[in-house]
Amino acid sequence: MFRSHTCGELRISDLNNTVTLAGWVQTIRKFGSISFVDLRDRYGITQLLFSESLNAALDANPLGREFVLQVKGKVNERSNKNANIPTGDIEIEVSEFTILNKSAVPPFTIQDDTDGGDDIRMKYRFLDLRRNTVKKNMELRYSVNRSARNYLHENNFMDIETPFLIKSTPEGARDFVVPSRMNAGQFYALPQSPQTFKQLLMVSGYDRYYQIVKCFRDEDLRADRQPEFTQIDCEMAFVEQEDILQMFEGLIKRIFKDVKGIDYTETVSRMTWEDAMWQYGNDKPDIRFNLQLCNLKKPTTVFSNKADQANLINGADFKVFDEAETVVAIALPGCCEYSRKQTDELTEWVKRPQIGMKGLVYIKCNTDGTFKSSVDKFYSEDRLKAIAEAAAAQPGDLVLILAGAEERTRKAISDLRMYMADKLGMRKPDDFKLLWVIDFPLFEYDEEGNRWVARHHPFTSPKPDHIEIMINNNPVIEDAANYLAHPYAGIKANAYDMVLNGNEIGGGSIRIFQRELQEKMFAALGMDAAEQQHKFGFLLGAFEYGAPPHGGLAFGFDRLCAIMGGSESIRDFIAFPKNNSGRDVMLDAPSTIDEKQFEELQIKLNLK
Amino acid sequence: MFRSHTCGELRISDLNNTVTLAGWVQTIRKFGSISFVDLRDRYGITQLLFSESLNAALDANPLGREFVLQVKGKVNERSNKNANIPTGDIEIEVSEFTILNKSAVPPFTIQDDTDGGDDIRMKYRFLDLRRNTVKKNMELRYSVNRSARNYLHENNFMDIETPFLIKSTPEGARDFVVPSRMNAGQFYALPQSPQTFKQLLMVSGYDRYYQIVKCFRDEDLRADRQPEFTQIDCEMAFVEQEDILQMFEGLIKRIFKDVKGIDYTETVSRMTWEDAMWQYGNDKPDIRFNLQLCNLKKPTTVFSNKADQANLINGADFKVFDEAETVVAIALPGCCEYSRKQTDELTEWVKRPQIGMKGLVYIKCNTDGTFKSSVDKFYSEDRLKAIAEAAAAQPGDLVLILAGAEERTRKAISDLRMYMADKLGMRKPDDFKLLWVIDFPLFEYDEEGNRWVARHHPFTSPKPDHIEIMINNNPVIEDAANYLAHPYAGIKANAYDMVLNGNEIGGGSIRIFQRELQEKMFAALGMDAAEQQHKFGFLLGAFEYGAPPHGGLAFGFDRLCAIMGGSESIRDFIAFPKNNSGRDVMLDAPSTIDEKQFEELQIKLNLK
Repeated sequence: MFRSHTCGELRISDLNNTVTLAGWVQTIRKFGSISFVDLRDRYGITQLLFSESLNAALDANPLGREFVLQVKGKVNERSNKNANIPTGDIEIEVSEFTILNKSAVPPFTIQDDTDGGDDIRMKYRFLDLRRNTVKKNMELRYSVNRSARNYLHENNFMDIETPFLIKSTPEGARDFVVPSRMNAGQFYALPQSPQTFKQLLMVSGYDRYYQIVKCFRDEDLRADRQPEFTQIDCEMAFVEQEDILQMFEGLIKRIFKDVKGIDYTETVSRMTWEDAMWQYGNDKPDIRFNLQLCNLKKPTTVFSNKADQANLINGADFKVFDEAETVVAIALPGCCEYSRKQTDELTEWVKRPQIGMKGLVYIKCNTDGTFKSSVDKFYSEDRLKAIAEAAAAQPGDLVLILAGAEERTRKAISDLRMYMADKLGMRKPDDFKLLWVIDFPLFEYDEEGNRWVARHHPFTSPKPDHIEIMINNNPVIEDAANYLAHPYAGIKANAYDMVLNGNEIGGGSIRIFQRELQEKMFAALGMDAAEQQHKFGFLLGAFEYGAPPHGGLAFGFDRLCAIMGGSESIRDFIAFPKNNSGRDVMLDAPSTIDEKQFEELQIKLNLK
Repeated sequence: MFRSHTCGELRISDLNNTVTLAGWVQTIRKFGSISFVDLRDRYGITQLLFSESLNAALDANPLGREFVLQVKGKVNERSNKNANIPTGDIEIEVSEFTILNKSAVPPFTIQDDTDGGDDIRMKYRFLDLRRNTVKKNMELRYSVNRSARNYLHENNFMDIETPFLIKSTPEGARDFVVPSRMNAGQFYALPQSPQTFKQLLMVSGYDRYYQIVKCFRDEDLRADRQPEFTQIDCEMAFVEQEDILQMFEGLIKRIFKDVKGIDYTETVSRMTWEDAMWQYGNDKPDIRFNLQLCNLKKPTTVFSNKADQANLINGADFKVFDEAETVVAIALPGCCEYSRKQTDELTEWVKRPQIGMKGLVYIKCNTDGTFKSSVDKFYSEDRLKAIAEAAAAQPGDLVLILAGAEERTRKAISDLRMYMADKLGMRKPDDFKLLWVIDFPLFEYDEEGNRWVARHHPFTSPKPDHIEIMINNNPVIEDAANYLAHPYAGIKANAYDMVLNGNEIGGGSIRIFQRELQEKMFAALGMDAAEQQHKFGFLLGAFEYGAPPHGGLAFGFDRLCAIMGGSESIRDFIAFPKNNSGRDVMLDAPSTIDEKQFEELQIKLNLK
């Protein structure tokens, strides 16, 4: 061993002991004839004192930042203690030193606030990983990993490895494929998730399965998406939805406790997908703050059970509202004094193409009890007051109203809600609020193909009392413009998402476990019998031999870690991430391969 | 939840409680008007009693093997107890039952001794996994996993995930490659091991890293090799070989304790590679039994430090020995009575092409003190006695002697040693003997290319006092026939293998951490500067910024589990293994992919 102690270990109780340390030179400070060096390793920083007697040796072997240094010396009490670090009471009076390895000057400083930009830090990721902030992220990730494993183990889950070289069954996202040399002309696929394998394990009787496992999706990368990502993947047999919610609520609470020291004792609230969309315009609402929507008008085809307040806006001859499918309001606390410039800026913000609204209506709820609005012409003060009250506005609040087509308007008001919550300091990074969103629609409409796709995945079971709707109706959509009127649009699934601070951190479902229903589901998605057999014959086959009721979920491990770490960038929590073009700039991968490799794989390029 | 208890849980203390169980029908036995059903789940088997009152219900819903059944009933004491199972004192008197799912008749019996052949069991792996023997293997695998993680965690190792989509740097085995759609014409490779990443993590200061991780090698499959396999991969900084041997000896001992309940307290013995080859003809000797080799003649180029006993065979004018490079003997205890037929069979065995010997010489050490040999003509009884004594033969033993070219003969005697140990019952599956083999050669001779390849991998450091030999000699081999005389043949590495019962379960090395030495190593392997930069530029770059001394090792997780489980077939310890053609016969993968996938990836087939 090159050391007797780590750089984070020595205390005043070690005084006068002779020790050997090894680590990296963080800083060198010369004071006349003596030098102080901060020596760093994974565990901390220890101050070294090079006294005058070592000057000749130092002149012959000068130290530099990031040099790897081994020192032997005596533990002394520091005259100038540093209360900020655990080793701050002591220093090592160096008697011998060895430079184990030199270092070129790093291309950026190895500090929390580095001067290195994103590109250079990614290229030299091995140096970036030395920075304390990045190291803390990796430590947090490991501690989430450890905590999850402990909880799952204590609850009888078994880690069972599923294969990485599987069969390509593109459905939804694109597969990464791997040419097979031994089976020329054929390809493996990398798993988008171990979904079918964990279901097979339930059929095999393994009862409770988990894996913290890499998954792969060849999608066009948006910020914060990676072609390879990690899931905490779980499945249970003989359970109903309630059992799963309880079990994994427990998991996340355990992680909060182990990793953050937070006792999250309150029951995790639950919200149906419909309520989430109705009240927040979003299926993963951030409920750290309220800011609920006031639905002043609803489309005819969805939210049939909800009571809108269209009476408040009707009959005013205000065409924008009259012609809109959806009109929705939100009350911003304490914003009634917003200037014309500020409301104009908000209007411009909602008119940006990403949001796509035509404009914005506001009502200022003045503290003196009066109301002022951009639609004064159409609505009397009494009517404005009624709208403001419906939006739960208090004196001093500013009510914002958006109007337009249902999906776009609802997304817009949700985006506006988040934007304003950020502005108003309502999204506190150290405040954590969990939420289960349940009762998702089973299907989603695919405009391009004018067909149904599985909202979660094709293995999700419909609610038991919706099975009849699925069986007794033809999935074909005759009237594309009016797809929401199709009976399939109303079918709800036994599916659930766990939401943390406005981010989906996990999701899952109770699965179909009957061959006939699974076939019906595949057929509803447009797969004929031959395709079903080719892609999923093994699963349909397995369902014939005693498949138990089962369900599960998967957490997005990278995102979970990021949010636990108070960040929304998953890349900061991955040791060797890829950039937005799917490249590892450190390795310079992907790259070309040899002619010999092409020959052996019996493929060639066919570049456009 | 579909159950109140599992099928392995109920005891006599639960008497008279009403419980709900769910599981699979293992057996159905009718006795007159009542039926007994064994209900099975992951946790055990519980006997169910269907009394006469349920006959009508059973007639309407007949049960079958592997049906998924839910029952409600009362816990009764059994009249006919079964001491072989933990639930054997009780049975459930069923009051209600529900068939949760039916099952077709399985294509083989779900029993320890199944009637299913290998192919059918692999096709229906989800049923094979139900068998108790296979389940026990999976449980053992998980418990090795859990034990390893706990030990490594307690010793400050951090699990850090390394990427799966990396750069192709074929060196040794073939890479699996993955065409990149976003970077058309370029390919990722799947990692053969996270070797360079774990070294980068040491450069980054992570100090102690581990991962239980899938690795990929596109090799022609022999029995017991899988294209994807799992490693326990570890690396430590600021360590010397001794630290690593201690740490991972501790890991394996901990696994023995946790998984097998075995206190492996003795120090793991160590043997140099040279001694292993000299004494056992093999670099992974099974030392559960002795049967050491007696070297009657050694080649001139290797084992220069070893004293052979050529004087015992010289001068007898026996050409076979005189002309052989190597003559080596082994004494088999108690085999002197072998008949002519038996020694002939042994001779045939060593003459098989896999062994490749020309013949076999024996000396029978009779219990009356006389000696009889197949080479009586050449050697007097005194000389035979001297040879037998050198081979440590006792009266009653049979000495076998092989002669021929060094490598083939040594391998042959090693194979013969194992074959005879099997025959003589010396390889006891519940006896475990660990061994460190150390001081491996750094290089291996590649006949095809007449060049040196890295025996472990190109990142392994030579022994410090062999670095000079490496630097001061030209790696080019002028005289291929005499490559063993090249100075590089004698360079030893700081490399070590852990051997368990004659199987290599892990191996590793102290790594090169200086850029110049790493470049010298790459050059010795025939890589010019441009190729070095293209393939490993990131690593050479990292070594410029303060790389610490470091080393590590990797255990073959599949094999470790198999041996712990008393088997030598890793496939039995993998949930979803591939066959010898690299196919998953259950999935029917690899398979063809769609035209659209080819187009998007911009590749096409180029079948020969």
